[in-house]
Amino acid sequence: MSEIDALIFANEAFYRAFADKDIPGLNAIWAEDKSVSCIHPGWNALDDREDIMQSFAQIIGGPAPPQIECHAPKATIHGDTGIVICYEAIGGEVLVATNIFVRGGSTWQMVHHHAGPASSLPLDPEESDPVSIN
Amino acid sequence: MSEIDALIFANEAFYRAFADKDIPGLNAIWAEDKSVSCIHPGWNALDDREDIMQSFAQIIGGPAPPQIECHAPKATIHGDTGIVICYEAIGGEVLVATNIFVRGGSTWQMVHHHAGPASSLPLDPEESDPVSIN
Repeated sequence: MSEIDALIFANEAFYRAFADKDIPGLNAIWAEDKSVSCIHPGWNALDDREDIMQSFAQIIGGPAPPQIECHAPKATIHGDTGIVICYEAIGGEVLVATNIFVRGGSTWQMVHHHAGPASSLPLDPEESDPVSIN
Repeated sequence: MSEIDALIFANEAFYRAFADKDIPGLNAIWAEDKSVSCIHPGWNALDDREDIMQSFAQIIGGPAPPQIECHAPKATIHGDTGIVICYEAIGGEVLVATNIFVRGGSTWQMVHHHAGPASSLPLDPEESDPVSIN
């Protein structure tokens, strides 16, 4: 598997865990020994790992947890850091996300997630195939 | 100057150029030989450097260009990549931004900017001092 494929795979694993409401899965994806941060749409930034895990538990543990699909991920690697830009179809809205991963041994570990409003899913049909669907 | 200070300085330079409507300044801050991407609030992602420069020219060259202040930057370094999370007071709104820089020689070069809505400026008085004001 190429480095880019492994990075896209890590990004997919994040959305799979989110879609599956899998908090232990999310916990395994987020880096444990590095600075982490998370910006949910309309929220201020969280930079405490426990707060971040609680925020996901709150979002996916509510009475009407949102369905989420990841579309059109594009990955870039700078040294030991990987950036994935992708679109999220979530609860009828379209968001765009910046996800940052850092190489940790043989895996990519998430250190940052930022999702905010986008105008629409990308129009390129090749790019709009969902990568992770619940 | 510490590495973190240099990273915060690069982030300040971005907002200074934005506030000063200084397109050549913005052009000098964005990496020239690396993959770059930019997500303005509510826009889809741009990943072509020329499109990104044109987007800034469009935003700051309009009839009522927004005033912008950067607040409460927090910087993290992972290897040769630096992440700055900060708040933007812009046109009466509060946004939160993810800015990513990559080390290029003796400077930090911007490779990604993502701004989206936040709930409010951070409450910590020490964190809410503006770093860059027009």
